[in-house]
Amino acid sequence: MIIEYDGTAYAGWQRQENALAVQQVVEDALRRLSGDKTVLHFSSRTDSGVHALCQNVHFDTAMRIPPEKISHALNPLLPSDIRIRRSMAATQAFHARYSATSKIYSYSIFNAPHASAIGRHTCTHVPLRLSLSAMQEEAAAMVGRHDFAAFASAGSVVRETVRTIYQTQVTKKDEHIEIRIHGDGFLYNMVRIFAGTLISVGSGKLERGAVARAITSHSREDLGLTAAARGLTLLRVFYGDDARASDYFI
Amino acid sequence: MIIEYDGTAYAGWQRQENALAVQQVVEDALRRLSGDKTVLHFSSRTDSGVHALCQNVHFDTAMRIPPEKISHALNPLLPSDIRIRRSMAATQAFHARYSATSKIYSYSIFNAPHASAIGRHTCTHVPLRLSLSAMQEEAAAMVGRHDFAAFASAGSVVRETVRTIYQTQVTKKDEHIEIRIHGDGFLYNMVRIFAGTLISVGSGKLERGAVARAITSHSREDLGLTAAARGLTLLRVFYGDDARASDYFI
Repeated sequence: MIIEYDGTAYAGWQRQENALAVQQVVEDALRRLSGDKTVLHFSSRTDSGVHALCQNVHFDTAMRIPPEKISHALNPLLPSDIRIRRSMAATQAFHARYSATSKIYSYSIFNAPHASAIGRHTCTHVPLRLSLSAMQEEAAAMVGRHDFAAFASAGSVVRETVRTIYQTQVTKKDEHIEIRIHGDGFLYNMVRIFAGTLISVGSGKLERGAVARAITSHSREDLGLTAAARGLTLLRVFYGDDARASDYFI
Repeated sequence: MIIEYDGTAYAGWQRQENALAVQQVVEDALRRLSGDKTVLHFSSRTDSGVHALCQNVHFDTAMRIPPEKISHALNPLLPSDIRIRRSMAATQAFHARYSATSKIYSYSIFNAPHASAIGRHTCTHVPLRLSLSAMQEEAAAMVGRHDFAAFASAGSVVRETVRTIYQTQVTKKDEHIEIRIHGDGFLYNMVRIFAGTLISVGSGKLERGAVARAITSHSREDLGLTAAARGLTLLRVFYGDDARASDYFI
């Protein structure tokens, strides 16, 4: 299934104790529909407040509803901030996480003296004047196969920190700045640290060349703050159809 | 002042008994700031659930805060779904409503089998397949100086129903269809009836040419249903600077 959600009201995607996660809400709805406990295997863990246009999940079920009809049966059982966009049969070999070949994330900034009312849950407000060209320069430095150890949160336990970034883009329309990044994988908080660094360099708080320096130094301190969760959206997950990523870039 | 708001939680712009309107929230915040009761004169009444990127208001005050600083002083006293975008001094002759020379409204449709989670408060969901070219044809028929009596809600008491529509536009990006309309004024519910008619013609439920027929017949029955409030946003109000409307059209 492909799931869209507004992450504002949830403690992220992944099921947890003592807080409501999107995974739990969808699994509970599936249980009501099928009568069986169902575990969702998902493509991407998203943090509290982070949104997804297409969280991909797979699951095993004995339900006799045609796979493409499950979205229609499930949506009425879900709150309006979670929608199943599509459901379909998968091959036995398919795994929502391990079969994923690349992903695109988007980060949205509202760059104006005052915050946006309508975009308060989906944009990060930056009142400082941002240099678009400086941000574009930093974003371009991400592209390639690099050791992104500097872009991992301090608490991260992942050992393998080499990732390939295929493409990045920073665009501006009126007060809205949008950052997009396409890569074969992302470390925990990597996109938010990347966005925070672009904001820091764009506002002149951090010297240009920060991304290149951090790729060499592996030092988190060469980068900006971790940008707020609300600006982040998982835009697309690819399964061998990575060539279609070009649809998401100008 | 120029005010942006997400209308989801409010009973429209205009202050009323027994329900919370945006006007009341802003007037109450101004009273807390100034110590005096303040009445806001506004450019556009918006209904419950309708949004505004720029509701324009004027008011008289004895406050000694520099006019351009009022936005900064007022925003911390407002909920995050209402933001003052800008405040400035006005001439005695200026009236937010009577000085307005034209306005642009936007109507957003999410055209996909399932509704949008992230856009649930700002888009109207239409699962039926819509013909973009049919919608564009109807939209084009609005342009000109016409008697739009057919586009006024049944309960409306306005006598003068002639308005000039300068420009309309229907664009599509992925599942999002956006209708824009620029005119010297709009009757009550006119934009929602216009949007509902485009949806009806676009889905084949109403024959092409509905707008032209209704302009001649003055009959509300020649048009489609009134589209849901949530898709509507007041985008911009002009005060003699109408030439800048071209920035909002492709």
